[in-house]
Amino acid sequence: MRLVFSTGDIHGIGPEIILKSVLRLQSENQTYMAVGSLKALEYYRNRLDLPVRLQPIDDTAAIRTLTQQYGVLPVLSVAEPDAIDPGTISKSAGEIAMRSLEAAAALCRDGICDALVTAPINKEAIALAGYRNSGHTDFLATFFGVPSPIMLFVDPVSLLNVALATIHEPLSRVPGLIRTIDLDHFFISLARSMQRDFRLEKPKIAVLGLNPHASDGGVMGDEEASVIRPCVERLASSIRLEGPFPADGFFGAKRYRDYDLIVAMYHDQGLLPFKVLAFDTGINVTLGLPIVRTSPDHGTGFDKAGQGISSERSFYEATMLACTIARNRMTTP
Amino acid sequence: MRLVFSTGDIHGIGPEIILKSVLRLQSENQTYMAVGSLKALEYYRNRLDLPVRLQPIDDTAAIRTLTQQYGVLPVLSVAEPDAIDPGTISKSAGEIAMRSLEAAAALCRDGICDALVTAPINKEAIALAGYRNSGHTDFLATFFGVPSPIMLFVDPVSLLNVALATIHEPLSRVPGLIRTIDLDHFFISLARSMQRDFRLEKPKIAVLGLNPHASDGGVMGDEEASVIRPCVERLASSIRLEGPFPADGFFGAKRYRDYDLIVAMYHDQGLLPFKVLAFDTGINVTLGLPIVRTSPDHGTGFDKAGQGISSERSFYEATMLACTIARNRMTTP
Repeated sequence: MRLVFSTGDIHGIGPEIILKSVLRLQSENQTYMAVGSLKALEYYRNRLDLPVRLQPIDDTAAIRTLTQQYGVLPVLSVAEPDAIDPGTISKSAGEIAMRSLEAAAALCRDGICDALVTAPINKEAIALAGYRNSGHTDFLATFFGVPSPIMLFVDPVSLLNVALATIHEPLSRVPGLIRTIDLDHFFISLARSMQRDFRLEKPKIAVLGLNPHASDGGVMGDEEASVIRPCVERLASSIRLEGPFPADGFFGAKRYRDYDLIVAMYHDQGLLPFKVLAFDTGINVTLGLPIVRTSPDHGTGFDKAGQGISSERSFYEATMLACTIARNRMTTP
Repeated sequence: MRLVFSTGDIHGIGPEIILKSVLRLQSENQTYMAVGSLKALEYYRNRLDLPVRLQPIDDTAAIRTLTQQYGVLPVLSVAEPDAIDPGTISKSAGEIAMRSLEAAAALCRDGICDALVTAPINKEAIALAGYRNSGHTDFLATFFGVPSPIMLFVDPVSLLNVALATIHEPLSRVPGLIRTIDLDHFFISLARSMQRDFRLEKPKIAVLGLNPHASDGGVMGDEEASVIRPCVERLASSIRLEGPFPADGFFGAKRYRDYDLIVAMYHDQGLLPFKVLAFDTGINVTLGLPIVRTSPDHGTGFDKAGQGISSERSFYEATMLACTIARNRMTTP
């Protein structure tokens, strides 16, 4: 199995956490490589004195013959900067980040690599470089022609898994979307992904209510009664889905421990408890793509770039999980 | 100083946690009493073998001459049940809960008591008894003619304080409300309450954005740019108010530790992180009333009623905080 890392915004902590992760990775029937800027990886390796040997790859054909050695990172250079300025937003870094992502996604699409782990990008930098996508998930959805991939957040420490029914939407649009999206299809896809990617035969899924106290019997909103509960009932015979639960009480009573997956109706409802509980070990997984893709659940960390103080914990965990999912997909019938 | 406890729903854990709290309370220039059902307190005292002596009070005039003795709880009976059935929703228990609350609120209004700590009530039971209010805060707002009291959640352990800009509203109404409520007045009242009730000379307040990532510069919604940020700027010279912050990142990075108070735009945005962080020590405080009122941040606990297994932790902390606030109000100019 072969994993590919996109180098992300080279003015952020991406190259540093990739290099630090390489020092923690053992080769066990898998190889790791990076795609993006070789120069940036060299810069941070030298600046932070990290004992990683960078091995340039000449072309994609050479990738197939790679073997893994501890502390060695093969790198396919696809875009190089004139200068590197840690902590700054720049068009050039945005451009390199997206070319790295595109090349890495293509390697997975073409079957040359088996999973993609992305280092963070900066939305302003990629906008300066002329990209309209609002982030990785959006770019990959377009690249693979998948209309609505699912964002899943995984914490390997607390074993909390949270998926979002709506993602980067204004709050005012959320109640309308809950009524119009195909919730049945969403939950069925999610259950299938959990079966295939996480080897959970009958994943136990909890869904949160949209309104405070899940509307308290209709006192505050009716999306629970008119949309969510009927959906849960329709799917009762095919998947293990329970709810809608009052969100605050569900997390307060630690009921999330009883489920393989919690589905939040909107961004902050899922990510507020997730970020409090997962702290710095959270991982983002994109479900519904033809390829495996994970990433650390943090940003470019411009304020810490180039200082050697960034934790590779989340990137390392994202790499481990990408391996697991790729292996599960290969062996699931 | 004199505190009064309303007994709440007598089929829930209210009487038990009141009795257990009495055993932890020392009299230091303050007295404690309960208003509601004497019979219910006797029932749980005997059933759970709690060494509290219940001292019946004949009339409100007798209250003024009370002195505190350790392990003694003076009780003013205002409504008594025919039977007590722990764990059941009943019209009678709902009726007694509300008469207890009303009598306790009146004692504070009339200056006979200085602060009110309420034991939990059940919304279904009070609806069966014909009350239309959705809870304590709603009832007290009507009772005192205060149009919009503020719900504040306090955790004395993590030192997290969270206030809600909107409370029990359908999520679909929240974005509209944020545009129509008088946010300036809300923040100024809040800052004054924090000064007077918590003795914070210049409380440092953080406000969360309404939309995911606080709209990321307008990409997802515009309430931050059109409503919240202008309000923060208008108030800059009078109160210490910062934000709007992306809610998930704010809590993920533990930035709440840098502020005396966090303001959430809606129920779940505030209570999701609060319930995860505060666990069983959270307290609810109603600000903006002419009286001091606190309560434990949990419900009637019907599943645990009468078993002696309920923690008085939150009720005890609510009592301590009510004392502190009452003392601060008395001594603040």
